[in-house]
Amino acid sequence: MFITLEGIEGTGKSTQLKLMAEYLESRGQDVLLTREPGGSDLGRELRRMLLHMDSQGMAPTAELFLYLADRAQHVAQVIRPALEAGKWVISDRFADSTVVYQGYGRGLDPKLLHSLNAVAVDGLWPEMTILLDLDPETGLNRALARNLREGKSREEGRFEAEALDFHRRVREGYLTWAALHPDRFRLVDGKETPEVVFQRVRDLLEPHLP
Amino acid sequence: MFITLEGIEGTGKSTQLKLMAEYLESRGQDVLLTREPGGSDLGRELRRMLLHMDSQGMAPTAELFLYLADRAQHVAQVIRPALEAGKWVISDRFADSTVVYQGYGRGLDPKLLHSLNAVAVDGLWPEMTILLDLDPETGLNRALARNLREGKSREEGRFEAEALDFHRRVREGYLTWAALHPDRFRLVDGKETPEVVFQRVRDLLEPHLP
Repeated sequence: MFITLEGIEGTGKSTQLKLMAEYLESRGQDVLLTREPGGSDLGRELRRMLLHMDSQGMAPTAELFLYLADRAQHVAQVIRPALEAGKWVISDRFADSTVVYQGYGRGLDPKLLHSLNAVAVDGLWPEMTILLDLDPETGLNRALARNLREGKSREEGRFEAEALDFHRRVREGYLTWAALHPDRFRLVDGKETPEVVFQRVRDLLEPHLP
Repeated sequence: MFITLEGIEGTGKSTQLKLMAEYLESRGQDVLLTREPGGSDLGRELRRMLLHMDSQGMAPTAELFLYLADRAQHVAQVIRPALEAGKWVISDRFADSTVVYQGYGRGLDPKLLHSLNAVAVDGLWPEMTILLDLDPETGLNRALARNLREGKSREEGRFEAEALDFHRRVREGYLTWAALHPDRFRLVDGKETPEVVFQRVRDLLEPHLP
């Protein structure tokens, strides 16, 4: 089973990812946690590049293609082999992030981005996408607090450093895109405590356990 | 004026590139010579990555997207600004290489590749593409001799290391693709000496000089 987690910064994706893995493993399942960008060897180099090159004026389409390269390699080298080995694969961000961030966020055409994603994922779409929904004010405050706590540099915190306005477009983009793909998207309110959020997430996993 | 040079390995693209620049400069023109992959700062990192990662099993679509990222950055950061500054820009390889190598060579759909190129070049297609045509046997012998002469490692010579069969498909792909875009492609026989080839190339440049 291939599951992806989506949402703006500060929604608690990493925490839910860990809770999901613990829960599934306690139920005897084999789990692979992964993320984008940076889920493969190539992806880790690209992630570094995406963070590093930011200040040097990367063209928006160049950035887009680097994310797609990361995804293509992630699918071929990591996700597909794990699924074939019978594992649950849970990815922190996947194809929807491109549509939402580059599309609804930065103004590229979501339909075009979807068709580019189709090339990158090569038929391997997630069976379930959990969208942790949260207002951007709360999300950004949480993300900034986490960065301070973890002593992250501003550069590492780049993804959080965007203007609030951008994150508002992203959040609405997620809701729009989820509504367009109701077969796959499950909306979870990210405002609650991690434990309460996880109760809802667990309810989504439960029916898929053997 | 934006001109691209295409052709399999060993057709003498680098030599013609230099002769073109010398000629245009002798006629008072400002010229920028560039290449793909590796025409921008980001591109040089990507070029290194494309050579380095080869042995570690890069997915064909990941490779494709890296070439497209290189191109998008090349257009935005290098080619468009140079054209706007009134320069002639001559690129050793450009969008057609993707269609021909990844498409006719490796079996991806040329039409799909063309539409991906359209995203990367963002409206900036070359006004003239000179295809140096040569049979792959001669081309590969020349390329191998050059690599020996320049003391290149096998890794650097990766682009030349493909099987002859592949290069036959690429050469035919170039001829097919050129026939589909007669407005822009100009075919030059690459079998002659560099001087004779350049006479033909110069005849193509001449009418565009002020």
